[in-house]
Amino acid sequence: MTDYEKFLSSTGRELAESAIRRMGTVVAGRTDLVSFAPGYPDPGLFPWDDLRDIADGLLSLKEDGTLQYGPTRGYAPLLEAARAVLGARGMEASAEELIVTSGSQQGIDLIARVLVSPGDVVLTELPTFTGAIAAFRNVRADLIGVRQEADGISLGHLDEAWLEAVRAGKAVKLLYLVPNFQNPTGALLGRGKRTALLEWATRRDVLIVEDDPYGPLYFEDAATEADTRPLRADDREGRVLYLNTVSKMLAPGFRVGWLLAPAALIDRFETAKQSTDLTSGILDQRIVHQALVRGVAERLAPQLRARYREKRDVMDESLQRHLGDRLSWTSPKGGFFIWARLRAGDTDMVLLERALAHGVVFVAGSAFFVNGGGHDTIRLSFSAPSTDQIEEGVRRLAACF
Amino acid sequence: MTDYEKFLSSTGRELAESAIRRMGTVVAGRTDLVSFAPGYPDPGLFPWDDLRDIADGLLSLKEDGTLQYGPTRGYAPLLEAARAVLGARGMEASAEELIVTSGSQQGIDLIARVLVSPGDVVLTELPTFTGAIAAFRNVRADLIGVRQEADGISLGHLDEAWLEAVRAGKAVKLLYLVPNFQNPTGALLGRGKRTALLEWATRRDVLIVEDDPYGPLYFEDAATEADTRPLRADDREGRVLYLNTVSKMLAPGFRVGWLLAPAALIDRFETAKQSTDLTSGILDQRIVHQALVRGVAERLAPQLRARYREKRDVMDESLQRHLGDRLSWTSPKGGFFIWARLRAGDTDMVLLERALAHGVVFVAGSAFFVNGGGHDTIRLSFSAPSTDQIEEGVRRLAACF
Repeated sequence: MTDYEKFLSSTGRELAESAIRRMGTVVAGRTDLVSFAPGYPDPGLFPWDDLRDIADGLLSLKEDGTLQYGPTRGYAPLLEAARAVLGARGMEASAEELIVTSGSQQGIDLIARVLVSPGDVVLTELPTFTGAIAAFRNVRADLIGVRQEADGISLGHLDEAWLEAVRAGKAVKLLYLVPNFQNPTGALLGRGKRTALLEWATRRDVLIVEDDPYGPLYFEDAATEADTRPLRADDREGRVLYLNTVSKMLAPGFRVGWLLAPAALIDRFETAKQSTDLTSGILDQRIVHQALVRGVAERLAPQLRARYREKRDVMDESLQRHLGDRLSWTSPKGGFFIWARLRAGDTDMVLLERALAHGVVFVAGSAFFVNGGGHDTIRLSFSAPSTDQIEEGVRRLAACF
Repeated sequence: MTDYEKFLSSTGRELAESAIRRMGTVVAGRTDLVSFAPGYPDPGLFPWDDLRDIADGLLSLKEDGTLQYGPTRGYAPLLEAARAVLGARGMEASAEELIVTSGSQQGIDLIARVLVSPGDVVLTELPTFTGAIAAFRNVRADLIGVRQEADGISLGHLDEAWLEAVRAGKAVKLLYLVPNFQNPTGALLGRGKRTALLEWATRRDVLIVEDDPYGPLYFEDAATEADTRPLRADDREGRVLYLNTVSKMLAPGFRVGWLLAPAALIDRFETAKQSTDLTSGILDQRIVHQALVRGVAERLAPQLRARYREKRDVMDESLQRHLGDRLSWTSPKGGFFIWARLRAGDTDMVLLERALAHGVVFVAGSAFFVNGGGHDTIRLSFSAPSTDQIEEGVRRLAACF
């Protein structure tokens, strides 16, 4: 038989797997599990009837373009609608600064390919999103994690990390951030820090990749829309590449997001995307466009905030009742995740094995660490399970100790 | 302002643009043009009513999975349906050998990333598909084109090219082929050559990438289904990576294809795809699955064959009438393209400029050449325009001389 190892490229040999995706494979088909693992939105909140109506309208009209190949840059009316979405959050975007991506993940991948050479440094929060870790690792970036505080990334440690890398002769290209309800910690980046980061990026000549899937999902008891103001909204120097997706605000099955970046870079991303998938799904783009212009997403947002806040409350109270002595955590002000620290002696991987046996699953915290650490942490996602399932899952988790 | 050039990766600096996509941008919005440029299917042949009915059914059922994140490998029932499609063409595929891709283009991109290191040789037909050229160039492959004869790639020149590369100390990883109604030449690879290529690949220890978007589109006056039998169907050594898409058989707007390859490689492709787009569009996959199991694609195929054959006839006759003395070509036995050679003294780029002024557009043949050649060739796509438009376009083309 053929030996395939020798056919692999240097990239192919060292491919990084997303721990969350791997977990998905492990639990697939086990209907008995309560899953706190993937950051899936609640499908009960997908606007099914609106989407059916929209799809029916589009496919009845039989406009050639609805199912034909389309421009790599994206469906022009969708780009216009995206500009309105961005504008409502304080971000001015010209048409030249936008490209549709097949979800935010493709945006990260395009950024990694176009901007990061092997050995270049990408700074990230420590811990950070596994999909970003995988995309940057797959272009063989040198990933350096920066400690976080209650209000997000530590500015002191950030500059130290930068200095150390530069002294070692490395090119520091990017800082990758999830400022709003971070994945996995749920942290909300402080308002003062946002301004300081923009200044820092200019001073140190680094680009910021701002990944913002959870921004509109602030919980009104703890945060306001103003607290989630994107860094991009105050970026006067063209330092910020801003990633947005409809995965959490409409539905992830569409694989539609957009990337807002300086026009000179958008041209490159477009060329890179050409050879990656030619174009994002055309029917998907048209459905999303209709959902935006008909106000479906706007009407839905308050329901999403209320519902996820309720779920956070249930998980929060449930954890306090059953696991208050074994776990410590800060209640998140928005988003999908509770990030919990284990007591000395407990480790994420051992607990995960026990949890699977008890019929509950989460993501081991170490999956989010680029430095091999984090084995005393776990990520519990409260977004997808029902409130009953959350309570049941926490009971099962408590039984592991 | 920020200088972005210095932020580019080595890949970002050298990105290869697909000439066809660029052409798409040039002509976008010009409604006065007759376009023989992109290889778009005829949207009048999309099964609109079936697809509307299917989408309506799926969105009415409100199954969570229809709009949720899904497995990177693909929607399992779609993979099953793909196995049946492959089986009907003589290809046995286990579930472990298949992955859904966001169109064939993503399949090529995954192959390029996982298998080709900078400087590795990829052999291609000369000329070949621009999307493949771009994807392989973007991993900095050394692309070597092999001359074609009336029945496809020259076996003699292929082995010479291999020998020369190996003598120069290069690793020859892949041979990329479009055996059925090749893009751009329309050539059908001879049956004897198919067997010989499999033997050659084993003898020379090279993998074959078989890209087969046009296979079922044979024209019954000139070719049979047996003539289009994929190399993969007779591959006993695991030498062939087979790419398939629904873009030409249903509609390209879905971005759904699949890649059939040895299981050991599929695992790598899956990991690479995770960080690329997590998953292909979920609603799209479910719609395509339904279209396959309901027999929509199967019922459509004979109509597609008949309609594209009619269009070929119209273009063929029209060219003979108006341009018989200026162009030479072989009438294709299937697919979307007529590949024409110009008379001495005419060049593709000059003709293209004149054609644009006369309201018709095609792809300059040189775009398909990896060696800088081909300026005496043009590709005329007859798939998308109506028969009236084909005649009008050929008249306009004739006026250029």
